Amino acid sequence: MIVTTRKIVIDTNANMDEGFISVYNITPKVHDLINEEYITNGMLTLFLPGTTSGIGTIEFENGLIVDYKKMWQRIVPQDLSYSHKFMWAENNAHSHVRASLMGPSLVIPIVNRRLILGQYQQVVLVEFDNRARNRQIVAQFMGE
Amino acid sequence: MIVTTRKIVIDTNANMDEGFISVYNITPKVHDLINEEYITNGMLTLFLPGTTSGIGTIEFENGLIVDYKKMWQRIVPQDLSYSHKFMWAENNAHSHVRASLMGPSLVIPIVNRRLILGQYQQVVLVEFDNRARNRQIVAQFMGE
Amino acid sequence: MIVTTRKIVIDTNANMDEGFISVYNITPKVHDLINEEYITNGMLTLFLPGTTSGIGTIEFENGLIVDYKKMWQRIVPQDLSYSHKFMWAENNAHSHVRASLMGPSLVIPIVNRRLILGQYQQVVLVEFDNRARNRQIVAQFMGE
Repeated sequence: MIVTTRKIVIDTNANMDEGFISVYNITPKVHDLINEEYITNGMLTLFLPGTTSGIGTIEFENGLIVDYKKMWQRIVPQDLSYSHKFMWAENNAHSHVRASLMGPSLVIPIVNRRLILGQYQQVVLVEFDNRARNRQIVAQFMGE
Repeated sequence: MIVTTRKIVIDTNANMDEGFISVYNITPKVHDLINEEYITNGMLTLFLPGTTSGIGTIEFENGLIVDYKKMWQRIVPQDLSYSHKFMWAENNAHSHVRASLMGPSLVIPIVNRRLILGQYQQVVLVEFDNRARNRQIVAQFMGE
Repeated sequence: MIVTTRKIVIDTNANMDEGFISVYNITPKVHDLINEEYITNGMLTLFLPGTTSGIGTIEFENGLIVDYKKMWQRIVPQDLSYSHKFMWAENNAHSHVRASLMGPSLVIPIVNRRLILGQYQQVVLVEFDNRARNRQIVAQFMGE
C-alpha cells in the first residue's frame, strides 16, 4: 500500500468585479503529480485547508464559468447584512458561507495510473475570498 | 489491501416536464457490487465522470423527490439568460451549474461487508442534462 | 494497511427558533479519535447515516453560524408547500432537501498523525431535523 501526500500551490486573486469568485483550473497540476507518483490503482483526495475556498469539478468553458459565478452571487449574495462582518473587519462572510456550502474536499479514483475524469471535466479551485490568498491544496494519493 | 474498480451503468432520460431533473436510485446496484467483492472493511468511492450529473443520497420517497427537484429549479432555474448557451448549441448551462454545485463524488464506508447507510438513505444518480445519456458511474472499492 | 471504524455520537436538538438548523463542532471529538488510533498517514472518512443531517467544515464563529443558518433558510425555506409532508406526518421535507444538498460525507487527509485542517477550519455536524436526534457519525480511518 502506498500513501503519499503532496501539495498544489496556487496564488489566487480577489475577484471584486465578478462577485469575489475566481475559478482556477488545477487539472494540469493534478496530472503532473500523478505522473510523478507510482500509484497504479487507488484514489486521489484533494483537500483545501481553509474556510473561504472550495474544490470541485466543472467544464472549464468561459461562458459556463460566468454562469457558475452568477449562481453563487444569486444564492449567497455579497451585499446581505451579515453577522460575521460586525465581529471581524474582514467583511467576507459571503466567502465563508459559499465555501461551506461547496465543501473543501474531492475524491477521484485512479485506474491504471490515470485519473477517471469525464472528457470535459476539469478539477477547479474556487476562490471566494475578498483578498489575494496563497492556497496550498493537499493532494493525497492512496492505493497500490 | 484490495483495490477494485467497477462500473454502474444507467441509461438516463432527459426530464423536460420536471425541470430536467431525474433521480435514479442506484442502491440495489451498489449492493450487488458489494456482494461480488471481497472487501470486509474499507470504503466505496462513487464517481461520475461527466459535468451534467451528480451523485448523492436522499430518502427515495416520491413526494420528497418532487420537493428535491423543485429546490434545484428554484436555486438554478433553467430559464435564466446563460452565457454558456450562446457558445454551444446544447442549451444546458443549467445542467452544468447544478451538477457542479452538487458534486461528482460520494464516499461511503464499508463495515463487515455492509455499506453503512441510514435506514431510509438511498444512493442516487441525479441526471440534470437535457438529453438522454448513458452514465457509467465508477465504483471503486478500497480496503481489506 | 490499517482500517478502523469508530463512531462519534451526538445528541442533537431541533432548533425551531433558527429555522431548524443546529451546528455542532465535532472537531475535538475527531481529534480524540486520531489520538487513540495508530494511523500515521492516510485519511479519515466521516459519514452520517441518515437523511436529515449533514457533515461539513466552517469557521466556527458565532456571527458566521448565524449567517450560515440564514443561507439555508433562504435557499431551502421551511414554509414552502412540500409534497413530502402530505405523505408523512413528520413535516420535515425541508430537512431532507437541505441534507441532500449538503451531502452526508467528508474526507480529510491525515499526515504525521495530524488531521490536515486550516487554522480556523472546524468539522461540523449540521442538524436540519425538526425533532431531537441521536446521531451516530461513522468515522473510518484508513492508512498506515
